[in-house]
Formats: sequence, structure tokens, C-alpha cells
Amino acid sequence: MTSDASTEHLNHWVLTLSCVDSPGIVHAISGAIVAARGNITESQQFASTETGRFFMRVQIESPSQRAEFETALEPVTARWQMTWDLDEVGRPLRTLVLASTAGHCVNDLLFRQRAGQLPIEIPLVLSNHGTLRDLVDFYGVPFEASAVTDPAAKAAFEARVLEAVDAHDIELVVLARYMQILSPELCAALAGRCINIHHSFLPGFKGANPYRQAHARGVKLIGATAHFVTSDLDEGPIIEQNVVRVDHSRSVSELVAIGQDEESRTLSQAVKWFAERRVLLDGARTIIFR
Amino acid sequence: MTSDASTEHLNHWVLTLSCVDSPGIVHAISGAIVAARGNITESQQFASTETGRFFMRVQIESPSQRAEFETALEPVTARWQMTWDLDEVGRPLRTLVLASTAGHCVNDLLFRQRAGQLPIEIPLVLSNHGTLRDLVDFYGVPFEASAVTDPAAKAAFEARVLEAVDAHDIELVVLARYMQILSPELCAALAGRCINIHHSFLPGFKGANPYRQAHARGVKLIGATAHFVTSDLDEGPIIEQNVVRVDHSRSVSELVAIGQDEESRTLSQAVKWFAERRVLLDGARTIIFR
Amino acid sequence: MTSDASTEHLNHWVLTLSCVDSPGIVHAISGAIVAARGNITESQQFASTETGRFFMRVQIESPSQRAEFETALEPVTARWQMTWDLDEVGRPLRTLVLASTAGHCVNDLLFRQRAGQLPIEIPLVLSNHGTLRDLVDFYGVPFEASAVTDPAAKAAFEARVLEAVDAHDIELVVLARYMQILSPELCAALAGRCINIHHSFLPGFKGANPYRQAHARGVKLIGATAHFVTSDLDEGPIIEQNVVRVDHSRSVSELVAIGQDEESRTLSQAVKWFAERRVLLDGARTIIFR
Amino acid sequence: MTSDASTEHLNHWVLTLSCVDSPGIVHAISGAIVAARGNITESQQFASTETGRFFMRVQIESPSQRAEFETALEPVTARWQMTWDLDEVGRPLRTLVLASTAGHCVNDLLFRQRAGQLPIEIPLVLSNHGTLRDLVDFYGVPFEASAVTDPAAKAAFEARVLEAVDAHDIELVVLARYMQILSPELCAALAGRCINIHHSFLPGFKGANPYRQAHARGVKLIGATAHFVTSDLDEGPIIEQNVVRVDHSRSVSELVAIGQDEESRTLSQAVKWFAERRVLLDGARTIIFR
Repeated sequence: MTSDASTEHLNHWVLTLSCVDSPGIVHAISGAIVAARGNITESQQFASTETGRFFMRVQIESPSQRAEFETALEPVTARWQMTWDLDEVGRPLRTLVLASTAGHCVNDLLFRQRAGQLPIEIPLVLSNHGTLRDLVDFYGVPFEASAVTDPAAKAAFEARVLEAVDAHDIELVVLARYMQILSPELCAALAGRCINIHHSFLPGFKGANPYRQAHARGVKLIGATAHFVTSDLDEGPIIEQNVVRVDHSRSVSELVAIGQDEESRTLSQAVKWFAERRVLLDGARTIIFR
Repeated sequence: MTSDASTEHLNHWVLTLSCVDSPGIVHAISGAIVAARGNITESQQFASTETGRFFMRVQIESPSQRAEFETALEPVTARWQMTWDLDEVGRPLRTLVLASTAGHCVNDLLFRQRAGQLPIEIPLVLSNHGTLRDLVDFYGVPFEASAVTDPAAKAAFEARVLEAVDAHDIELVVLARYMQILSPELCAALAGRCINIHHSFLPGFKGANPYRQAHARGVKLIGATAHFVTSDLDEGPIIEQNVVRVDHSRSVSELVAIGQDEESRTLSQAVKWFAERRVLLDGARTIIFR
Repeated sequence: MTSDASTEHLNHWVLTLSCVDSPGIVHAISGAIVAARGNITESQQFASTETGRFFMRVQIESPSQRAEFETALEPVTARWQMTWDLDEVGRPLRTLVLASTAGHCVNDLLFRQRAGQLPIEIPLVLSNHGTLRDLVDFYGVPFEASAVTDPAAKAAFEARVLEAVDAHDIELVVLARYMQILSPELCAALAGRCINIHHSFLPGFKGANPYRQAHARGVKLIGATAHFVTSDLDEGPIIEQNVVRVDHSRSVSELVAIGQDEESRTLSQAVKWFAERRVLLDGARTIIFR
Repeated sequence: MTSDASTEHLNHWVLTLSCVDSPGIVHAISGAIVAARGNITESQQFASTETGRFFMRVQIESPSQRAEFETALEPVTARWQMTWDLDEVGRPLRTLVLASTAGHCVNDLLFRQRAGQLPIEIPLVLSNHGTLRDLVDFYGVPFEASAVTDPAAKAAFEARVLEAVDAHDIELVVLARYMQILSPELCAALAGRCINIHHSFLPGFKGANPYRQAHARGVKLIGATAHFVTSDLDEGPIIEQNVVRVDHSRSVSELVAIGQDEESRTLSQAVKWFAERRVLLDGARTIIFR
């Protein structure tokens, strides 16, 4: 009796990798995929002139299990000393959300998650305020609030974050307008898996109340930037940016409302790409395989 | 013998004004326009919460000549101590263009001017390089080049600018990628009638070669800002801004080409609005009556 | 004893009007506003070359009550046979929402309404499906569902709509992806106060499953149009449009998700403008006083 | 004597191909590239669910000449019955431009070509009017005009087009606002290598003077579409689209000016992608490997 490929169950894998660029990588990787009975359905690659590294993302249909792929890939990843990851397409990323009082980003993430537009699952929302409890409850997600009013409370909150990351096998932490600066230690612990959102202006404004400054200067475009968190505040690798046009007649509060819309959609887009393994780090830059 | 309004020639006027805001201004202005047999065809106004000033732009059809309008307006402008200007709609603004070696902005201005899309006339292009002579010649516009290689040459160039402004009754000076910093004295002499264009990024970058910095940081949006020139370099009131999306695969030279497109269209748009008397200054902000 | 204007309570009014264009309208209106002790804080006007009509929207601060304004305006509105409306700025518009199974537009409206970004109140959501009951419940808004499966059920549903419009003094009906065609009678009954949203493509596609057609044709832009409902299906006066860029790699379901985002924000924007009395009808066109 | 790869001259090739999708293609192609001593510097691929075809574009650095590549590729292209093309990166595409009286698209193409932003060379501009002679002369490009006023003149003009295509080894024909409908025979002769530009609206408008219709309907977005010419007028596969926002205050002539800007940049973008071999045909769709 022969196996019938057409009725065999196909797994759908996503492989991401990076290594120092040199000839033959694509041939070797595609050879390993053929060996694991895989068919490439989507593939993107990029050779960085900044760092000399090669990046690749491949989606593969195959009847094989993980072990078979690992066996086929091992000689290739070893030879090129690759950083690599193999995962199932569409597996929801375990995501911890940190929030404060503003609900626009949290609502957007929860609504899209429930609508099936964001491949994440959210086991917990942590906040330094109780404001959003009802909203989060509505979506059936556990919510914990504890004030961050002094250094001891901040240390306790951050310890709770790390505990939750551990307890829930968290793969992504999203700062959905969480209005506290993370300690360098927490930034380091979450490096490469923590995304923040902030408003953006042309030109940029330092200090308090940037919307008031932008209004005073009469800027014509306001927007938002989603980026990885590093200890260098608001300066981590950029994942996504959007802007929208405004004019002189907009009040400060209207600019804030417009800016919040941009923040919501920019953060949700960045989370979606990350969860789909489309975001790779190349030093201070991101490669986005859209 | 009766006059027949329908066959009388109608002039088309644009009135712009500003003053401290208080009740009754619109009623007084519209009364003066009625007195001068004018019909309002377009009107915009704005009361600034930043400075407490009131701004207005009105387009008027009327058989009256300038003197008749001035008589009707005089009591109103005097009572409210208005800054005001009355001009014919569509009268080409006398415009001096300064350039260096990059041709994209100069070509865009000259092409649109000739195509009837920009209500300006350009009696002269001054440059610190000879590179663009053929391009400017093609459009039949006089072109003068003199190098700016030391302080004496810079002083001579700026003296030539002021001489040309005087000789040609120049109403607008456009820095079309003129790559020299104007002296504070020239900035002061041209205050409110000199427009510059520069590239813009989110976030901004200081220092040399910003496109290289933007590439290294992996920005996702690049753009351009047109603004009034003040002695505070690249910080004058913003007139127009545009951005366009880029991704990690763009080389530095591609970013430059994309940025140049944004510079051309942003500068031409700002010049058009200024020439149509749609740009009013409100302290550090512009009011744009589009 | 003299009155002290600075401590007197100021009402904030919005006046909208239209009439056949002729000289002197602005002067007459501004005179009536002065007579009612009003200060104009925002004013926009437009003379339509299509229909020869004049349109105006004015925001006014004044200690006067409605009766005082009506007395001052009466001679002016009578002389020019104006269609006009006077209302308090920010008064929430009583809004009935019709929905089916898709939740993106309903969620966006309810979230923005609660966040104070939409000056509407929603006494009721009517649907031909029960799908969205939990979502609407969460926002504390009454929800009624009744299936529309045959002509009798449709007639009953539409009768319930008109009854609700009457019972709740409804000023705006929003079709938030309500997937039934309204009868000509209901369209007529709601003329000028019913807004619909639909997807938009370049070029347009007729018939079923337009996203599939757009995918087959490889369109590069997809978007949404919010418009007034008329008996001419999807052809009423346009209020707002947005588009977003897509490429060949997007699946049909991704196009649908992208299109839904555009639908949500386009509909909410149109509702906001309408509720702020910024949308006036000029024959088949809208005037949007943004 | 050993060869020293680091000092050997590297050619830069671009390979495009399509075939029926099946496993192993990428591995086979990358193997042939390794055999021809090539290093992949850029690679994109796409499997079409519409047609079941696989598309690929690869840029390759290699010391090899064409013959060596052809030898290495032959077994692969034969086995999968590929449609394929190998060319030097950056080789200017021989491009014939057809024009009428409007200069905006022609000026944009010629300016960008001279500025090094468009990898094309233009040996000839053919027009049915003499209007643009001076403009084309300025760029040093031969220009021929002959009126198309009756069927015989049209046949003669089209014969001249085909003659020029032959004489100059033309690889791309650009209709830069050429206002004549091509005969089905000419469409067929130029299939897949003739690009047209036209204005685009949401919704679309049939018949004469679409800008007037768009104005009458009050559209909020106008734009442009660049597409391949087929005998089905304005319905060929779409290459690029852009839109820009407009409001009720724009006159018909302003809409025309805004639309022309969109036409220029959209057409130039489409020509650039085609010249860089980034545009592949998948039935009625284009694959754009940006």
C-alpha cells in the first residue's frame, strides 16, 4: 500500500534565520527543505550592507514533524552558524500586556485578538492603575493592578512582570501606553521581545507635553512609532511608523485624539508582524518581511 | 442711462488681514466689502488661542478699483489696528530662486510655473554653482552663478541677493536646495518672505549625512518640510510637510531619490499657497487657508 | 449696576445655513450675531458653482439664549429664504445604529463614543442577527435582534426602525455594516440623516464578492466610502473616503481585514463630522466644513 | 597561477522566471546559481493561488559571463518549462514615448531619466501634435509629430510606431498621455511591453470629462492608475496606483492639476519598476517585486 501525499496531513511551518552572508546559503536551506519533504509557499531574504548579515524567512508546507526538519536543517545551521527558529504558522504568541490609564491601545489589541486578526493569546494584563479593569474583564482576560508610586512599588511591579513572563511562558511583552520607564534590568531581561508605542512628530519634541509643543509650532503631520524597548529610552529599533495630516485649526485635545488613533493602529500592526515572525533584528535596524 | 452690472468688468480681489481678536470684526469687514460693491466668493478665518489674534482671508468680486476699496476699508482697519493686504487674485508673485547643484526643486518650480500651475514669475535664478545653467536657460530665465568659497565671496553673494530683491521688486525668495546657511542679517532682511525646504525624518537626525543615519536606524518614513527661514536654522514656522513610506531594503541612494521627490512637491506646494496669499504668520505657527 | 460680561455664562452655538448666493449675506448674518451679543469663534463658507447656493457654518460664543438668537436671525433668514439650524456645540446627537454580524464598525463607534471622541448618544442598536449582543451589552447599550428572512420580516424590521426613530427622537441612523438593502420608503423617510459605509476599489467592481474580484484584478489600493443613503444603492452623496496600499501577496481574507479597518475609521469620521454639523448637502455633493 | 576572486570583475545579473508551481524549484535555481559562481544579493518569489504559477526574481553577483549562466540554468529551465529572462542590472531599457499635447508626464520621464533615476534610454518621442517639441528638444531627444485626424493618418502613425519599435529595438512603449486609442492590432503587437496612465476616481466615471463628473459628485479622493495596455480599453493589468485627498472647494481645473501630478509620479514609478524587471504578469494581475 502506498502513501497518498494528497490526503496526508500537511503541517505549515515558518522558518526564520540569520547568519554572516556568503554564497550558497539559499541553496543549502532549500536543499534541507526538500529533504524534509517541504514545499516553500512564501520566502523572503535580505543581505544587510550595514552588518554583512543575511536574513531569511520561509513558510513551508510539509507532512513532516519538527524532528524531521531539525535533522534536515542541523548540518546547514551548524555550518553557517545560524541563529534560527522553526515554528508553526499561526500559533498564537503568548503575550503579556502592560497598561496604565489610556484604553485606546488595549482596546484595539483585545478587539483584534478576539476578531481573529492578531495571532496572539493574552493570559494577563498588568497595570499600574485600575482604570481599565472593566474593559479587560469584558474580553475575559485576567487583570491585575498595583500602583507604582515609589521605587519599592516599582521594583515589586517589575518583579511581578518577570514572574508573569515565567509563569505564562510569555514570548512578547507589549507596552500599550504603559507610562512608566522600565528599569535597565527589565529592559535587558526582555530584550528583543518587548514592544513600545509612542507618538511621533516632525520635528521631534523633547520634554513634557509634546502635543502642546507640536501645537505651538504648528506641525502639519503627527504620528506614532512602534519600536523595540532598549535601555535607551524611545530609541530602540523601529518596527512601524504612521503619520496623519493636521492643520492649524486643531486644538491640543484634537491632536491628542488623532495621535491616539495612530498609536493604536501602529502598535497593533507591529504586534501582528512580530507574532507572524516577520520582524528580525539587524543591529539597530529591523528587517520587516511583510 | 443706467449701468448694467452684468456687463461691467469685475475685478477679483484677495484681502488678508490680522488683528487682536474681538467681537464685530467679520461684520465690520463684510460691511466695508458691501460698501465697495463687492461679493465674497471665498472666505476663511481663524482665531488663534496661542496668540489671541484673529486672521482672515477673503476673495471678492467687484467692479471697484483699489482706491474705492481702500476708502471703504480704512475706518475698519484703523479701528482694529489691522495688518492687512489687498491684491488681485492670480497676480504672479515676483520670485527669486536660489540654488546650488541639485536640480530637482528648480526643475519642478520652473516646469509648474510655465504650465500655469504656480502664480509666480521668476526674473532670476542665483546659484553658487554653474551646474544648473542649461536647465534654467531652457525655461528662458536669467541665471547667474558665483562661487561662495570664503566669507568675502559669501558677503558678495548675499549683497547680490539683496540687490536683486530690490531691482526686481522681489516678493518671495525660494531656497530651492541652496546649500549655504544665510547670514542672520539676510534672514532678517527677508523675514516672512523666504521659504526653505529640507528633508525630514522620524525621529530627526542631527549632523552630516542624515540619510545615512536614517538608513542605519531603519526609519520607515522619510519626508520633507517647507518652512519660513529664520536665523534659527531649519526651525522657522512650518508651511507644509509630506512623508512617504520606505522599508529596510532601500539603499542610501534610493532614500535620497525618494526624499528629493518629497522635497520637490512639498516646496512647490508651499510656494503655491504663499503666492495665493494663503499663508499667514501667527507667531511661531502658520495659518494655512487652503 | 452694570452687567459684567466676563463673569456671565457663555453659551456655545453652532449655526448652519444655506440659501441662493447673492451679495450681503455674510454682512447680514454677522450683524445678527452682533445683535445677539455673539462672538464668532469659527466660521466657514462656500459658494457652490454647481448649484448657485451659498453655505455657511458659524460657531458663536454668547451669553444669549436661543430665543434671543432667533429674534435677531429671523429678518435675515426670512429675507434670503434660508434653510438654517441653530444648536449647542457638543450636544450629543441621538443616533440609532443598525448592524448585522460584523462587529468592527459597531465596536469602533461604541468605543469612541465612550472615550468621548464622538459627540453622539446611542439609545439602541438594532440588528438582523444576534451575533453582536455581547459586544453591545458590554457598552451598556440596549440591543434588539430580529431576523430578516422574508419580505414580511423585512417590513416588520423597518417598521421597528421607524418606531425607534420616533420613540428616541433619533437624529442620525448609522448603517454599521447592516447588510440589508433598505426599502425606497425607508430611504425616503431617513433622507439626509442616514449614513452607510461600503468598501471602495479602484476600479470599482459590481456584483458579489468584490474583494475576490479586486484580488483577481490585482488592485493596489483598497478603501472605504461613507455616504448618505439614497434609494440609488451605494450612490448617495459622499462624506468621506480613505484608501490603503496593498500588494499582490495579500490573500482575499487579508484584503477583507484591511478593508474592515478602513471601513471603521471612515464611518466613525463621517459620523463625527455629521454630529458636529460639519456636513451640508449641495445637491449630489456634500460640503464638509472640517 | 591561482585566480583571486576578490579582484575578479563581478557582473551583476537579474534573473526573472515563472513556471507551474511545484516543490524543489528554489533549490534547483539556487543550485544553478552556485554552479555559475553566483552570489544572490536580492531574491523574491511568489506562488499565485489564482493561477498556480510560481514567480521569482533574483539579483546575482558573479564573475561569470552570460554563456556560463545559460549553461548552468538550461537543465532547470527545461525541466520546469520556465519562462525566464537574464539581464544585466541597470542596463537602460530602450523606451519609446508616445505623447499628445499634455507635457506633465513627458517632462517627468525626461527629467528623471537625465537625473539618473530611471534606467531607460529614450531614442524617440512620437506625438500626434507638435506642442511638446521644445520641451523634448531641450532634453536632446529626437521628436516627430504627425497629426492623427482620420483613419488613414492613424494607420500611418501606428505603422511609424511599429517601424520605430523595430528600428530602435524598443523594449517598452510608454503612453505618456497619448490621447488616441490604439488599434487592437497595435495592442496585440505591443502586448506586455506597453504601459498607459489614466486618472482614477472612487467611484469610477464613464464617458467624457470625468473630472467634471467627479466634481459634480463631490469625490474626496482622486488619483491615477498605470497599467499594461490591452485591447480592453483602460482595463489591462494594474501596475501602480496613487490617490490624493481633495475637498468640495476644489474647482474642476484644480482637480485636473492635482490629477496630473498623480499621473506623472504614478507613470514614472511604473516605468521604473518595469525597467528594473520588477513587474511580472500573472494572468490579469501583476506581481510587483519592489
